[in-house]
Amino acid sequence: MEKITTGQTYEQAFQFSQEQVNAFALLSGDHNPIHLDAEYAAKTAFRRPIIHGFLAGSVFSKILGMDFPGEGSIYLNQTLSFLRPMYVDTAYIARLTVLEADATKRRARIKTEILEQESGRIMTEGEAEVLNKQRI
Amino acid sequence: MEKITTGQTYEQAFQFSQEQVNAFALLSGDHNPIHLDAEYAAKTAFRRPIIHGFLAGSVFSKILGMDFPGEGSIYLNQTLSFLRPMYVDTAYIARLTVLEADATKRRARIKTEILEQESGRIMTEGEAEVLNKQRI
Repeated sequence: MEKITTGQTYEQAFQFSQEQVNAFALLSGDHNPIHLDAEYAAKTAFRRPIIHGFLAGSVFSKILGMDFPGEGSIYLNQTLSFLRPMYVDTAYIARLTVLEADATKRRARIKTEILEQESGRIMTEGEAEVLNKQRI
Repeated sequence: MEKITTGQTYEQAFQFSQEQVNAFALLSGDHNPIHLDAEYAAKTAFRRPIIHGFLAGSVFSKILGMDFPGEGSIYLNQTLSFLRPMYVDTAYIARLTVLEADATKRRARIKTEILEQESGRIMTEGEAEVLNKQRI
């Protein structure tokens, strides 16, 4: 099984629809109108409804658990800085960079970023730490 | 409108069902069997399916946006350490403690913890930073 190594990067494209944002509001109970109500959002600096930060960040949960390093990952911690508003039906890229893979402890510290595909601007940045006995 | 102040605490009880975990798996794409497959989970140290960390953490998104400080909150950042596995149909308490409310910058730094209701043990800990022009 292929192991992840220090310096390695991984990218995955993703986007969310308004229907997915609505579903996340129901699931989390976060019905903040900034995420759901176009008229309300139009009166704010964001102009349009923005995606919940936790829904956006869930792309890292998906990638770390399914793809990179993948099955067997145990999520230890995550930091998230929400730098810019993220919108529905907009193409984003999740970029993971392995800052340190410790093959003895089977742990990796991974830089986690979300970029807007068109502009390349960083929307969300942070770090994750995962344990994976097979792939680190 | 009531403002939040340094040292203030806020608690809210919550729990998630397996149906909600399944819905989060669909929404996020994180179909890691540790969250969904009781037979798979039984062979791991967790013994039973565990809640996605991002689903558990979404309780902070809900509380910060809806309740404390509430409407108008802009999420700036969040750290999460997943200390112990969290399970479905289990009573948890989200506890928020205002570490620093800056009335000039309208920003607050808030300690965010999840405790198991029965044992009082801390399952998840971290910090959030929010901006709220009305309530900080």
